[in-house]
Amino acid sequence: MKSWSAQEGLDTFFHYLRFPTVSARPEHAADMRSCAMWLLELMQSWGASVSLEETGGPPIILAEFPAQVNTASTLLIYGHYDVQPAEPLDLWQSPPFSPELRDGKIVARGATDNKGQTFSLLLGLREMLAARALPVKVIVMLEGEEEVGSPHLAAWVEKNKEALRCDAVLICDTSMIETGWPAITTGLRGIACFDFEINGPRCDLHSGMFGGPTPNPALALARILTRLHNDAGEITIPHFYDGLIEVSPAELKSWQDLPWNETWFEQATGIKPSAGERNYSVLEKVWSRPTAEINGISSGYQGSGSKTIIPACASAKVSFRLVPGQDPQRIAQLVQTWFKQELTCEHVTGRCIYDHGGDPFFTAPDHPSMNLVSRALTQAFGRAPAWTREGLSIPVAALLQKQLQVPVILAGLGLPDCQAHAPNETFPLTQFEGGARFIKAMLQEMGGV
Amino acid sequence: MKSWSAQEGLDTFFHYLRFPTVSARPEHAADMRSCAMWLLELMQSWGASVSLEETGGPPIILAEFPAQVNTASTLLIYGHYDVQPAEPLDLWQSPPFSPELRDGKIVARGATDNKGQTFSLLLGLREMLAARALPVKVIVMLEGEEEVGSPHLAAWVEKNKEALRCDAVLICDTSMIETGWPAITTGLRGIACFDFEINGPRCDLHSGMFGGPTPNPALALARILTRLHNDAGEITIPHFYDGLIEVSPAELKSWQDLPWNETWFEQATGIKPSAGERNYSVLEKVWSRPTAEINGISSGYQGSGSKTIIPACASAKVSFRLVPGQDPQRIAQLVQTWFKQELTCEHVTGRCIYDHGGDPFFTAPDHPSMNLVSRALTQAFGRAPAWTREGLSIPVAALLQKQLQVPVILAGLGLPDCQAHAPNETFPLTQFEGGARFIKAMLQEMGGV
Repeated sequence: MKSWSAQEGLDTFFHYLRFPTVSARPEHAADMRSCAMWLLELMQSWGASVSLEETGGPPIILAEFPAQVNTASTLLIYGHYDVQPAEPLDLWQSPPFSPELRDGKIVARGATDNKGQTFSLLLGLREMLAARALPVKVIVMLEGEEEVGSPHLAAWVEKNKEALRCDAVLICDTSMIETGWPAITTGLRGIACFDFEINGPRCDLHSGMFGGPTPNPALALARILTRLHNDAGEITIPHFYDGLIEVSPAELKSWQDLPWNETWFEQATGIKPSAGERNYSVLEKVWSRPTAEINGISSGYQGSGSKTIIPACASAKVSFRLVPGQDPQRIAQLVQTWFKQELTCEHVTGRCIYDHGGDPFFTAPDHPSMNLVSRALTQAFGRAPAWTREGLSIPVAALLQKQLQVPVILAGLGLPDCQAHAPNETFPLTQFEGGARFIKAMLQEMGGV
Repeated sequence: MKSWSAQEGLDTFFHYLRFPTVSARPEHAADMRSCAMWLLELMQSWGASVSLEETGGPPIILAEFPAQVNTASTLLIYGHYDVQPAEPLDLWQSPPFSPELRDGKIVARGATDNKGQTFSLLLGLREMLAARALPVKVIVMLEGEEEVGSPHLAAWVEKNKEALRCDAVLICDTSMIETGWPAITTGLRGIACFDFEINGPRCDLHSGMFGGPTPNPALALARILTRLHNDAGEITIPHFYDGLIEVSPAELKSWQDLPWNETWFEQATGIKPSAGERNYSVLEKVWSRPTAEINGISSGYQGSGSKTIIPACASAKVSFRLVPGQDPQRIAQLVQTWFKQELTCEHVTGRCIYDHGGDPFFTAPDHPSMNLVSRALTQAFGRAPAWTREGLSIPVAALLQKQLQVPVILAGLGLPDCQAHAPNETFPLTQFEGGARFIKAMLQEMGGV
């Protein structure tokens, strides 16, 4: 296989970007499949054994590149070829699926999330293949439903563990700190979501005729919600914090250099970040501490003016962000037990319904494979990576780590201003080229060459 | 003027009931006016000086019957000729505006509320007129917008105080305890209604990215709402109870005989009446104690499933039932001051908007005119009336008392099972006849004859 010039690599990437692979829209089903076939044939032409895996949704692409220099290691690269909807279209300066190079940046839907990040790795991989120097086996797995919650992924992974057997998983779907400052995401929060439902009188009552002795479910709900936290901002549910893995001093110390301080949070949200547990920094609060959050409340009359009723019922959406060491199923039991006990003091009836949950994710920053990625990133970008976490979930990370029992490394190539999910999404050429450098360094590190 | 037989009185009442005077429906505007004209001409034919008072809505009818036996007293009878909508029509056993006599009960929309109660008084008045024995001047004032909140009444009363000058006002628009057991309503609660609005982040935020340090307006709202009451069920707003007029021991004692106990409340509402201030009976709680009630709450996501956000805002409808001695305007100031103070601890912004209020109403049961009504009811129904109150507002009672500065007496002729506002509304003939006996006795008492 002949090497590609930079232009050939870019042209091929632009071809990839032209597929409008919006997984949220059923009318793009054919585009999803065309794109999957194109990717499959591309990697096959590079020497991979490939397969198109049917799941019930857009197919998963699996490509296996045998090591050319014989070692026993295998790296699994996960990515996704589907993208967010491009709307609102009128805010785009150029059509979202007609990629352009503007001011050193590739502009298109998917430019960074996730076509760009993954494709830059594939181009680095291709360089090694062309040089007949691939020192480890590489499995590339690309799914087409990440942006709609990967509804078919877990079942498929469960059945295909053997085909995915590897020593480490690399996911490039997060962000660097800034240009030239890479990052490894060592942890993600999990989640457990609930519906709290309180029932009082058999129907809405006239508050003049019955107000006073009649328990008000909206008040009972408000009371229960305020008991989720104590005055120190800690969650009061018994055993909630049991088993929680504390952040290491080294990881904590590394966060102090990062640009996300109280001022940053206040500017981003429009409100002083004054809530949460005392004695923790804002970054700790969003990255490594669990939360109990009210996502919504509904009860009685909500229109204009007034309607003087005692509502028959009240409900709230309550979700808990979980951190390493916490298990959603166990938290669900604790929350439900707590809810039952709190409800008895309110003279109303009700239910606490567990809606769904997701595992927290953690890879120790001092794990050998993390050191290896760290060295590769340093080599590619000229600066050692920061250790970061994210407060949200990337379910595939926890899923692959749980199913494959290997370290999953989140080393993103995006930048905070890449406009992922927004109009005018970009991926700077520096990142595109950096990604290729990074994977080459990483594969060499893995192969010990 | 010739006396009427019972049948003539009933036939005329049925004619009155046939007017579909639904004030809530604009398509009945002409029916309202026809009914008003008919009433006006009827009372004119009985010897009244009458006038049709234009207010911007259905007209007010004013009829003045001079005393035939010369005394200086004047009684004002207030009533309303408009009725509630008849829907749901399929639940009526006979058409709502085709009155029938069934099992000794008159069945029609308005049979009790308020055509029947008022017309039975008019028939009693007519008997005295026919006998040339009316011992006091009687002013009859009938409005056509009671069921839609009397939007034009206050302004009209303010301008026509001279024409309404009287010694007492009688309103028959409440209920007796049961057949043969009359009641005088000595008090009604007032009201003050508010919107509580809390603002947090500038928009709904991703609870994974920002949850922890970011103040949650739904939680801040829940906290403020729970601080409305202390553990003893008392309202915590400073000076809220100042000036409140306690119920007299005699009035309290009289409530003990009434059939509305805890069991009655539980059956009526479907929930144990366990809320409110300690050491007060359920009747005290709904009749003579103020309340703070949450009528509705709204915040964030309220659909099915979950949406993991920190809501940008949260709001609640909160209303206070007030009792004699409390003034809605003053309560509004207290609530707004309290709200401001509570909000400062929550690190969010917000507003407490006073929507509207209504005065509480009270006539001392030992007032001379109350004694007079009490004697008249005893004479008409063979049993001394109970003293009751109601937890809701009848705004016209407070309005007339405030504007005319005379006692307003609420002595209803309805029964709890008359189905006012509901399908198959009835007015038993015994009540219809009792109403006529009552007004005759009352006028004789007033005239000292």
